[in-house]
Amino acid sequence: MTDSSMDNASAARCLVNGHLGAAVPVTDRGLAYGDGVFETMRVGRGQIALLDYHLNRLRRGLAALRMPVDLAATVLELEAEAERLHTGVIKLTLTRGTGRRGYAIPAEFTPTRICQSFPLVSHAPEHAREGVRLFECQTRLALQPMLAGIKHLNRLEQVLARSEWSDPDYAEGLVRDTQGNVIECTMSNLFLLENGRWVTPDLGSCGVQGVMRDYLIDQLARIGEPVSIRSVPMATVLSSDEVFCCNSLYGVWPVVGLAQSRWPVGPRTRRVQALAEQVLV
Amino acid sequence: MTDSSMDNASAARCLVNGHLGAAVPVTDRGLAYGDGVFETMRVGRGQIALLDYHLNRLRRGLAALRMPVDLAATVLELEAEAERLHTGVIKLTLTRGTGRRGYAIPAEFTPTRICQSFPLVSHAPEHAREGVRLFECQTRLALQPMLAGIKHLNRLEQVLARSEWSDPDYAEGLVRDTQGNVIECTMSNLFLLENGRWVTPDLGSCGVQGVMRDYLIDQLARIGEPVSIRSVPMATVLSSDEVFCCNSLYGVWPVVGLAQSRWPVGPRTRRVQALAEQVLV
Repeated sequence: MTDSSMDNASAARCLVNGHLGAAVPVTDRGLAYGDGVFETMRVGRGQIALLDYHLNRLRRGLAALRMPVDLAATVLELEAEAERLHTGVIKLTLTRGTGRRGYAIPAEFTPTRICQSFPLVSHAPEHAREGVRLFECQTRLALQPMLAGIKHLNRLEQVLARSEWSDPDYAEGLVRDTQGNVIECTMSNLFLLENGRWVTPDLGSCGVQGVMRDYLIDQLARIGEPVSIRSVPMATVLSSDEVFCCNSLYGVWPVVGLAQSRWPVGPRTRRVQALAEQVLV
Repeated sequence: MTDSSMDNASAARCLVNGHLGAAVPVTDRGLAYGDGVFETMRVGRGQIALLDYHLNRLRRGLAALRMPVDLAATVLELEAEAERLHTGVIKLTLTRGTGRRGYAIPAEFTPTRICQSFPLVSHAPEHAREGVRLFECQTRLALQPMLAGIKHLNRLEQVLARSEWSDPDYAEGLVRDTQGNVIECTMSNLFLLENGRWVTPDLGSCGVQGVMRDYLIDQLARIGEPVSIRSVPMATVLSSDEVFCCNSLYGVWPVVGLAQSRWPVGPRTRRVQALAEQVLV
């Protein structure tokens, strides 16, 4: 372990299985196979925003990976860490723990729980105010229904997609699946307004089901604007009336540019942005 | 880190970036995203079997992940560790090193190199002698040409496939892709004999290109038995004359049972087995 990596590791407060620490054994299956799940959560006023949504996704991920874990201790730890942090970001990682060589899941395993606290990311405020342009990524998401929607630790597709651009003019990148349908952005979900109705891509075969996406779907249904979840070809995005991307850290960014299309920041998007800001205090 | 995980980690000799150690920082991108590659190598008489083939796959993997790493120090370390171990298994992992939160690849990164030495796995000798039955896995491999063939750290598909059976009557499991074609086994490649000619599945869209597979393709070409690399439907496997699976740790296992099909251990398979044993001394 080099000095620089130690510096980096110690930049945030970190608990490993409830104890202060900054390292995991090389035999951890999270490292060996990406055998685990994670959540990145915004903390404000000592509380985790959208905690129930994060826990729901965590449970779905653990079920998909056939990894039974009682979350009671995890929830207590998250609440205590959020209170201590007051404002910032908590990243929780749950892996299947250490194991011998080989893919077979150990008959008995003790999950590794990693809870990292970070200061709040300072996304440029103009992204939310003036909107963002999206880079068109060439990396395509493979169709894997068994792993779709959950936030597991196999994220090479996102790493490759995000590596395609470095121009800061693009705040996010649009990613399609191997059949050409639009799925999401590298760290966000996507919504668009078509003939006055909200649409968001179906994530049954790939993509990450973001908690802000789930929250907004619930909130929009509540105010009589149900969101249609379906396949979205690229042409549908380009011809839509309003577009935005969202996640649970920054809320909603209006999309004002993609390929040759340009949009003003729409009034309907502003209303959704206000819904997101209610929970990101 | 619990006591049991420390015990497990210390079961093998391990170097992290050239120093004795058994842990990596929680901020390592290998853990966070599976952002790295690995090789598991058989060591005999103080040397790594098929080292050039392993290094070739490593280079292809690093290129696919856009991860330029000079392997000179790695090769020296592997050779020294193999000499020290004499007989056993070395697992090498190269990750993109530590990073901040977020998928973006750091402008400058220092890879993490993990070199673990293990005693030789004691696979049941009757697997090679009498052949094995294959379990038919339901887990399907997604089609992702950008990551196909290489041995990256995103291995949840293999973990899920291997978790489908625990009956020791099955030594390995057959895995198909999402289109139904036969691709490989969970930790092995597959060859079959059809009308007197060897066939192995094309791995252009998914699967791991095993070094024993590459070595056998080269050796069979040399003795005038070229291997056809192409799409393999399930029916082709079931109706073939001989079937075997292979990897660089155990060599060649004849397949004697799959679904309703039964095969004797074929004479052509025995010749290939001898080719494999030449390099696994």
